[in-house]
Amino acid sequence: MAPSGINNGRAAPGNPPSGSIPGRLASVYSELQGSRLDVSLPLPSVLRNSIDVVDGPPSSAAGNPGEIAKLFPNLFGQPSAILVTGSEAKAALDENLRIGVVLSGGQAPGGHNVISGIFDYLKDRTKGSTLYGFKGGPAGIMNCKYVELTKDFIYPYRNQGGFDMICSGRDKIETSEQFKQAAETAVKLNLDGLVVIGGDDSNTNACLLAENFRGNNVKTRVIGCPKTIDGDLKCKEVPTSFGFDTACKIYAEMIGNVMMDARSTGKYYHFVRLMGRAASHITLECALQTHPNITIIGEEVASKKDTLKNVTDYITNIICKRAELGYNYGVILIPEGLIDFIPEVQQLIAELNEILAHDVVDEAGMWKKKLRSQSQQLFEFLPEAIQEQLLLERDPHGNVQVAKIETEKMLIQMVETELETRRKTGSYNKQFKGQSHFFGYEGRCGLPSNFDSNYCYALGYAAGALVHSGKTGLISSVGNLGAPVAEWTVGGTALTSLMDVERRHGKFKPVIKKAMVELEGAPFKTFASLRDEWAIENRYVSPGPLQFSGPTANVSNHTLMLELGAQA
Amino acid sequence: MAPSGINNGRAAPGNPPSGSIPGRLASVYSELQGSRLDVSLPLPSVLRNSIDVVDGPPSSAAGNPGEIAKLFPNLFGQPSAILVTGSEAKAALDENLRIGVVLSGGQAPGGHNVISGIFDYLKDRTKGSTLYGFKGGPAGIMNCKYVELTKDFIYPYRNQGGFDMICSGRDKIETSEQFKQAAETAVKLNLDGLVVIGGDDSNTNACLLAENFRGNNVKTRVIGCPKTIDGDLKCKEVPTSFGFDTACKIYAEMIGNVMMDARSTGKYYHFVRLMGRAASHITLECALQTHPNITIIGEEVASKKDTLKNVTDYITNIICKRAELGYNYGVILIPEGLIDFIPEVQQLIAELNEILAHDVVDEAGMWKKKLRSQSQQLFEFLPEAIQEQLLLERDPHGNVQVAKIETEKMLIQMVETELETRRKTGSYNKQFKGQSHFFGYEGRCGLPSNFDSNYCYALGYAAGALVHSGKTGLISSVGNLGAPVAEWTVGGTALTSLMDVERRHGKFKPVIKKAMVELEGAPFKTFASLRDEWAIENRYVSPGPLQFSGPTANVSNHTLMLELGAQA
Repeated sequence: MAPSGINNGRAAPGNPPSGSIPGRLASVYSELQGSRLDVSLPLPSVLRNSIDVVDGPPSSAAGNPGEIAKLFPNLFGQPSAILVTGSEAKAALDENLRIGVVLSGGQAPGGHNVISGIFDYLKDRTKGSTLYGFKGGPAGIMNCKYVELTKDFIYPYRNQGGFDMICSGRDKIETSEQFKQAAETAVKLNLDGLVVIGGDDSNTNACLLAENFRGNNVKTRVIGCPKTIDGDLKCKEVPTSFGFDTACKIYAEMIGNVMMDARSTGKYYHFVRLMGRAASHITLECALQTHPNITIIGEEVASKKDTLKNVTDYITNIICKRAELGYNYGVILIPEGLIDFIPEVQQLIAELNEILAHDVVDEAGMWKKKLRSQSQQLFEFLPEAIQEQLLLERDPHGNVQVAKIETEKMLIQMVETELETRRKTGSYNKQFKGQSHFFGYEGRCGLPSNFDSNYCYALGYAAGALVHSGKTGLISSVGNLGAPVAEWTVGGTALTSLMDVERRHGKFKPVIKKAMVELEGAPFKTFASLRDEWAIENRYVSPGPLQFSGPTANVSNHTLMLELGAQA
Repeated sequence: MAPSGINNGRAAPGNPPSGSIPGRLASVYSELQGSRLDVSLPLPSVLRNSIDVVDGPPSSAAGNPGEIAKLFPNLFGQPSAILVTGSEAKAALDENLRIGVVLSGGQAPGGHNVISGIFDYLKDRTKGSTLYGFKGGPAGIMNCKYVELTKDFIYPYRNQGGFDMICSGRDKIETSEQFKQAAETAVKLNLDGLVVIGGDDSNTNACLLAENFRGNNVKTRVIGCPKTIDGDLKCKEVPTSFGFDTACKIYAEMIGNVMMDARSTGKYYHFVRLMGRAASHITLECALQTHPNITIIGEEVASKKDTLKNVTDYITNIICKRAELGYNYGVILIPEGLIDFIPEVQQLIAELNEILAHDVVDEAGMWKKKLRSQSQQLFEFLPEAIQEQLLLERDPHGNVQVAKIETEKMLIQMVETELETRRKTGSYNKQFKGQSHFFGYEGRCGLPSNFDSNYCYALGYAAGALVHSGKTGLISSVGNLGAPVAEWTVGGTALTSLMDVERRHGKFKPVIKKAMVELEGAPFKTFASLRDEWAIENRYVSPGPLQFSGPTANVSNHTLMLELGAQA
């Protein structure tokens, strides 16, 4: 029962080597952080003994294979790799590998474990190898800013949240000058491998870098690892991106708590905006975990070509129906990227950008006449605060900052207005009180769940094995995730096989297409089959705080399990 | 690894008696909620065997004993009760008690366990007793709206968050008409006892009700229980109010996650507003758990008679100092009630209320001349959005709605303005990006921590024993909370001994004074001795999600332990 962590500057309770924690020297650990440091993680059984690498069949591309083949002449068509237990123990201990690792893009719980996994592979399987961590994301590669990751350096970050071991960044390596800088670093450090931990964009760039290195006879092999809490980097061989599991559990804890509050208080509608600008996986997963009354899925809105008025009416109709049943409270989930899914909003914003770039916005509103009639109508339909935001909040290029629009507050106001209209016609006569929430930063740096801890460790360990076996241009792939860790499959998937092209500025650009919520997929269909009941009945589930031990420590997320074929 | 809770309408996994869950019939339980249902809670050893009740010395009042004696002629001076192990087993099993229970005011984790505790006392110690739950708070007593709380009714709420078993309300029983209604219910249901679970106001009213019942020969004894996440109902005999522990742990989890994000991203200042309108205990406890760079404690601001400009400068100075050290990120905690602690803001609002009630607010701003010069200056100092909020957002009585002011956003804007000024003088030249958060509803209805689960169960069990022993006008009191549960002390404290009087409308009104953060108390002094270091060094601690098992499941909150004399 002793309080902990108050003693300032006290070292972590998990007995870190005293005086030798360069990274988190200034940190004090909570009891829980400390208790996670020494947890020993299970490895898939194929990674426990001697490892052989077997090639799969040749690969193609997700689309336009002809163009992808042209863009990746050295890599296109290469087979995926499958790691299997070796036929006999090999004496590989004398190989000195030099590997660099970089974190790219937004934080996701588990990143530190990918790095631990690479390190432990090198420690277990090679001798005298060196792991470098590039600091601050891809810029660290280009500027050759790095730190050597030793056992003592890594230790304080094992199973910990955050990306602060080496930090991350959003720079990209994509121009020929940047490729040259990266190659200089690779040559200078004599790197055998580079592991890029990132999302769809970062893995696309990792593949371009692999192609570039191979084309220029730079020996450095490049391996990607699938990271993003948004869950939109996945395919058959890469069933999920790391961080999604933990982030959704953190958000679902908060949503569940708010639900219990809503039911107990009986007088608030909580509008909860959730991270996920491009895809609505987080919102869908949180809905499956908590059973809110209303959930808006961007992909469905787009597919039905819904207008903002449609979305408002959908919400308002359920609120009115619930009022008839005596429920004047509820919980509503909204994906952060909602308005990006609504065609008419996109159109309005495009027109506004054009007008604001060239015209004066006069007080009298004459400028509005330049909008097309549908856009003008939509603009007038928006709450005043949002109108102002559209006119005033501009990025350095003068464009409307869609990301700054607080969608949940906008919807509250639009629902209020619609309810006011219905009140006048007598079809609604209750109190409506909206409360807004945005759950975002809270989920990106939490302590990784047991699933993410294990998954990331396996991804990193596999990345080490892939570099060691001479592979390049693959993304570390761990599968069979519904089974116990021992039975997980491990390999590497050709990054070119995930690619399609997009035409930008008259040129074909390779892209790993974001995995959107599939309206025919099991997670959405399960949700869609239950949501009408959740709307009216109150089927609230409160998942509670993520547990690391006890009976619920290994409960997996619904999206993954449903996609793997679990029955709803 | 199986997903859970998707099957809609599935009963709780903890084997509740099927078809007999009237309260949460529509609920589906998460794995964790289910796993909590059947946890058997430890009782203090004095409650495990035959219980004797021993009287302490006569009591007085917290202030103005003469006036309190006049207001409570039947109760004043009564001794506190101490529960001790009985000298021999008594055959009390044949006593039929009829007890009512009510939840009053805002939600706090653990309320359901108080009710379970009362129920289990009756089941264990009496025979054929009945427990009634009044629905929707004190209004349920006045309107005689109740439900009989049976074993099956209570079961699905054991160790669960929320107040939805019988819900709560904010009505008060304070006029003679209301006392009469309450008495009618008490007589109609032939109640031996009534347990009021609430905060300072509710316990004051519980005591008035006890006085009124005794004065009018209504046999119903009234016992209070200390509830509020704000932590501002406490005294020597009642070391903490329930819910504070869980709520702070939930908020601290979120703050810790945001801190890891701040450190990993390196470019945001997160301004976190926390619940606690009257006292800053939650903010202080969260600071002790997480070590933010800046923490504003309302009581200190008030004691130093700080202005809003002082607070802004304090924050801005630290931001500039950190910028010099290369840190352009940080985490800042702000109590929800901050502006209530700033005298000049109170003055401005009072003047605004007066002006807005009688005058027209002209566009040209002539109305501002009616403000005193200090208030006029303050008004001009406020960000435009806050000025608008002050003028436009009015409650039904026409008053400015202070509670609606988003203090964290206001401070971000004021800091931005101050930094802009310093930028012009060359004393600051970095990027400042503020992110605002409000953690409130997320903490009130979480699954109660092991501490709150045990504490509430003991409070309820003790309340049952106090009613059984014929006591009235006491608040259930469980002490020695730093020791294992078995060694906790149990009793009841005379509610009149917590009271003082306030003069309102020319009359003395009894009040239980809110326990504010003591600037000479151990929690604040510990914080104050460390905050300068936390401001500059980054001593962030991430407490992580509340655990119910494993090595950290019984870590207690700092405020309680420091107040009990633990060494920092």
